[in-house]
Amino acid sequence: MKPITLQNYAEGHWVAGSGGLAELRSAIDGDVVALTSSQGLDFAAMLKHARSVGASKLQAMTFHDRAKMLKALADALTAHKEELYELSYNTGATKADAWIDIDGGIGTFAVYQGKGRRELPNDRILIDGNVEALSRNGTFQGLHVYTSLQGVAVHINAFNFPVWGMLEKLAVTFLAGVPAIVKPASATAYLTEAAVRIMLGANVLPPGTLQLIVGGVGDLFDHLTSQDVVSFTGSAQTAAKLKSHPVVQRESVRFVAEQDSLNASVLGPDATPDSPEFDLFIKEVTKEMTVKAGQKCTAIRRAFAPASVIDVAQEAITARLAKITIGDPRDEATRMGALVSTSQREDVRAKIAEIARDGAIVYGDPNASPVNEKGAFISPVLIRCDAPFEAGAVHEVEAFGPVATLMPYAQRNEVFDLVNRGKGSLVMSVFSYDTTFAQDVVLDSGSFHGRIAFIDRDSAKESTGHGAPMPHMIHGGPGRAGGGEEMGGIRGVTHYMQRTALQGHPRTLAAIVNRYIAGMPTENAEQHPFRRKFHDLPIGYQLKTKAREITLEDIEHFAHFTGDTFYAHMDEQAAKANPLFGGRVAHGYLILAFAAGLFVDPDPGPVLANYGLDNLRFVKPVKPGDTVEVALTVKDKTLRRPDQGEVRWDVVVTNRDGDTVAAYDLLTMNAA
Amino acid sequence: MKPITLQNYAEGHWVAGSGGLAELRSAIDGDVVALTSSQGLDFAAMLKHARSVGASKLQAMTFHDRAKMLKALADALTAHKEELYELSYNTGATKADAWIDIDGGIGTFAVYQGKGRRELPNDRILIDGNVEALSRNGTFQGLHVYTSLQGVAVHINAFNFPVWGMLEKLAVTFLAGVPAIVKPASATAYLTEAAVRIMLGANVLPPGTLQLIVGGVGDLFDHLTSQDVVSFTGSAQTAAKLKSHPVVQRESVRFVAEQDSLNASVLGPDATPDSPEFDLFIKEVTKEMTVKAGQKCTAIRRAFAPASVIDVAQEAITARLAKITIGDPRDEATRMGALVSTSQREDVRAKIAEIARDGAIVYGDPNASPVNEKGAFISPVLIRCDAPFEAGAVHEVEAFGPVATLMPYAQRNEVFDLVNRGKGSLVMSVFSYDTTFAQDVVLDSGSFHGRIAFIDRDSAKESTGHGAPMPHMIHGGPGRAGGGEEMGGIRGVTHYMQRTALQGHPRTLAAIVNRYIAGMPTENAEQHPFRRKFHDLPIGYQLKTKAREITLEDIEHFAHFTGDTFYAHMDEQAAKANPLFGGRVAHGYLILAFAAGLFVDPDPGPVLANYGLDNLRFVKPVKPGDTVEVALTVKDKTLRRPDQGEVRWDVVVTNRDGDTVAAYDLLTMNAA
Repeated sequence: MKPITLQNYAEGHWVAGSGGLAELRSAIDGDVVALTSSQGLDFAAMLKHARSVGASKLQAMTFHDRAKMLKALADALTAHKEELYELSYNTGATKADAWIDIDGGIGTFAVYQGKGRRELPNDRILIDGNVEALSRNGTFQGLHVYTSLQGVAVHINAFNFPVWGMLEKLAVTFLAGVPAIVKPASATAYLTEAAVRIMLGANVLPPGTLQLIVGGVGDLFDHLTSQDVVSFTGSAQTAAKLKSHPVVQRESVRFVAEQDSLNASVLGPDATPDSPEFDLFIKEVTKEMTVKAGQKCTAIRRAFAPASVIDVAQEAITARLAKITIGDPRDEATRMGALVSTSQREDVRAKIAEIARDGAIVYGDPNASPVNEKGAFISPVLIRCDAPFEAGAVHEVEAFGPVATLMPYAQRNEVFDLVNRGKGSLVMSVFSYDTTFAQDVVLDSGSFHGRIAFIDRDSAKESTGHGAPMPHMIHGGPGRAGGGEEMGGIRGVTHYMQRTALQGHPRTLAAIVNRYIAGMPTENAEQHPFRRKFHDLPIGYQLKTKAREITLEDIEHFAHFTGDTFYAHMDEQAAKANPLFGGRVAHGYLILAFAAGLFVDPDPGPVLANYGLDNLRFVKPVKPGDTVEVALTVKDKTLRRPDQGEVRWDVVVTNRDGDTVAAYDLLTMNAA
Repeated sequence: MKPITLQNYAEGHWVAGSGGLAELRSAIDGDVVALTSSQGLDFAAMLKHARSVGASKLQAMTFHDRAKMLKALADALTAHKEELYELSYNTGATKADAWIDIDGGIGTFAVYQGKGRRELPNDRILIDGNVEALSRNGTFQGLHVYTSLQGVAVHINAFNFPVWGMLEKLAVTFLAGVPAIVKPASATAYLTEAAVRIMLGANVLPPGTLQLIVGGVGDLFDHLTSQDVVSFTGSAQTAAKLKSHPVVQRESVRFVAEQDSLNASVLGPDATPDSPEFDLFIKEVTKEMTVKAGQKCTAIRRAFAPASVIDVAQEAITARLAKITIGDPRDEATRMGALVSTSQREDVRAKIAEIARDGAIVYGDPNASPVNEKGAFISPVLIRCDAPFEAGAVHEVEAFGPVATLMPYAQRNEVFDLVNRGKGSLVMSVFSYDTTFAQDVVLDSGSFHGRIAFIDRDSAKESTGHGAPMPHMIHGGPGRAGGGEEMGGIRGVTHYMQRTALQGHPRTLAAIVNRYIAGMPTENAEQHPFRRKFHDLPIGYQLKTKAREITLEDIEHFAHFTGDTFYAHMDEQAAKANPLFGGRVAHGYLILAFAAGLFVDPDPGPVLANYGLDNLRFVKPVKPGDTVEVALTVKDKTLRRPDQGEVRWDVVVTNRDGDTVAAYDLLTMNAA
């Protein structure tokens, strides 16, 4: 097969490097499958193109528009995924491995398109937290917002997940309204290039939104600014070099690093060889060692078991490893494919030699070359280290292949110290049915790990496992892992936005975020708001009702009708003794019901349903003879379908003296 | 007056440096007021002391315990604040300047003790966000938590706010459960030292929680780990040096920088010389130039006004500046004191010369030495620059004194570009009554600024002003400002904690965070939960009620009683046409009221009041003839006083088929 020459996508054009082509070889047989170079690209112009063309287009779209764009991209990738699967074999990945990369990547887009539509506003500014009272009379208040960075996301990705590694970063970047320049690791860049072609072919990405560099980044870093973000996945060494770049330092360029990690897995002190957790641990360690031939930044590198069961554990793991068929990933019988390249295999062998000095290899021959001589195949290797407190390399060196070290711990508390010796990891898994142990893990080791997966007899069946980063959860970790965070639902979107504290009069803050803020001027409802369609309800449109008295008869009637005969409503003597009331009071639900009676306009109209209520507080008791009246104000609106949208109403119920007795948000679905 | 020799507080002891004493001089007359050195300290031992002694003590306390500690410290500082005021004059600060530093610092503790008790749990683990559904049947779910970093906060502070600069960082650090080592800038370290003595004297800080270095940090950085945080305030140059330290890089030490900032203030295009906003702008620019003699990282350095009014603005500012009396800060007539030192004055003079090349000085003689020859007094200096798009230094150079540059803009949109040329700032202020302009400011410039203060005729009276960082709001900014964030309410606390994604069965997650999570095993209530006191209600304690039918008569009765005769309840024909119902349905509030009727136990007991309700959703309509029944489960508890606490109940209302029709959190106040 003639090797293909990969192309860069720069400033809206596909262009091959002008020379210095590097050869990319198949992991299976060493044949050259692609040639690649980014020579001749104008990196400064690429950044400028993204900033001036891409950013403005994306930032004119709302979060919902961008979410819909993600959906279209996911659909296009799904339609063409067989092409990607075919290319993927050359990386050494089996079909199951490729599923993680390709379907996992598409699934991340799918989760984010849903979260973007459900959890983000149909707007361009994202509110963070609540209004802060900064003044006594409320004429000066505070509110935090996120706005899109006016720069470029530079994604420098690792070789192991050429599709997922790109898509998990693009999902949040695009949702944030930021254009991206993707630079995949060369070894598997042909797969990334193919995925980029599919996405561009979907014709939903505004110009300038996505560019691709299949080669070195040249002088790109010299042209970064404070509005750009670098998201780096790879070695700590390269990360340190890039982070220290003078422009990154001078401009405080946001730098997200996901680098090395010596992930631990712990079999709890409660687990005996016949407990379900023991079995689950054995299976997970074996799986994590062999999936993707162990080339996952989240793979288990250090497995800890109670000293009392470690020999049984070793036996069980080696027995399972012995059943792993290594071979051509195209072959359906193959359980483990190849490493990405023979040079990667050399690196793994060197690292195994280092780690093995802390103990002994108890399964596998790292120097064997299974399957064939030209491919990058290697046997899984299990190391046993019996003195983990004296060990060095085992807690310091990452062999990026099918390699793990099994270690004992004697005391329950010892294991917290041991897992923390990894000096910061992406993920730890814990196999235990003891929830006290689980809590101790979090208190004693939580701050050293970006994610902790608790797997037990109740959760195993549905567990997504130790190694799988889910788009809902943050991915990243402190210390050795780089100190970065990716994904984590909407958290990941904010990594590409700037948080700004706004201070001002509620009138100004409300106008900025298109949302009612108490204290802003309201518009007296000429027409009952229930008569107005979604689009005809301005923020701040307010109905004030007449007052209604709540009599003792009302309270008693309500109590007997509903069955809620709580003494505070029914027994003057007992209610007087209550420190909060000092006498009989109306039911909270009676206040709510009468409030609705006051503001509801009964005839059919645009309001379809009251579907909920948020943040209700009963602020002051209502006593027999008090009155209630309501101010109902349009607070926020979110169109959900062309013909329907949610309206959030601010509801304040006051008494005769004008004191607030209850306040809440009311939610209705309205015709548009 | 004989100079005092400052002492370090290291490993629980006050100790002077062993030599190499530096002289600290009064800003007023150049007399030596203090001698200082950190020579001979064992910095590695100080870090170890904080980690092994301080961290464990602090982390055993709950957030509420730590908040109470802050309150005691604030009280001690208040009781001794006159001593601090007296020392403060030597820094060149007037009484009004000192108020910002000393009372501002104490106020920050006060805000945080309140927020800590109201907004944080009485626990050691902080939940971030909602439970994430990761599986179809809910046996594997996700939850993010924050836990305390198991390291030390190293605070490197600037000279300008020796008290506030320390306290704003300590407030969040202590709340987070992390011990601190404070290293103030030498020039004003005597004031910091005095404040530390007062805090230690309060006897509420556990050993190892607070240490002080009055001098260089020696080899301290060589001993940092991934669990430590450096929070730096000072020059970009020093920040870059420290950030690039090999240990900071290798361990991914969290580094928060607050460095230079060319803060802008904008007079809106709508403001005419007779508008209130014009006056407010003039006053604020003058105030920001002269308070603390302009030595505030948040001070206005670049003031932009519409070209049409700039001459009037210049006249008005210079007229106000002419009224500023410069003199001994002890003198009550003095409006502006001295810079911190004569060397600082030399630096300011040099920077003024650079900036003035972009325009001309229109007020003040930077080379004059007002008041006396030995002090560090300087005149306020206003520079006018008419070609801001051609200017260089004005957007690049920060003169850290009473210096600002006034510049015109012709078009409304021009000003966004101009303010952003500061390449990232801590704060911008906008004086405009046009809310559309305000929204454009946020969309076009938000991502370049950490804070934007909108000041207008409605907010001015209560405004806290351009320059004042409030504990509720984030302080920090992108790019030149360092890319860091401080304070911002509870956000600042999380800067000293690690966010970790937890995955597992709800039983495990719930045990970790001491909170009910749907899907965990519940405990069937033997005794009605309303009969149990606060402390006798375990998380997961659950009452299941009997069912009650909702009849058509109930609905009609409720409608007429409350006045809520919405057609969906009353008119079969119209309700059928509603796409969500397809027939008459019960009122949401009727469901709530009947639910309460089912679960309320009426006699006096520990439940004092239902004070609120959160996250109510009506999931499925209830039709006449349907039944409702309730599962009421203890979800969360927060003790508020020794004898009272809040209980959050999970309430699920189901129909005859077991389908959820409504779900919400119910809040009660319970006797303990």
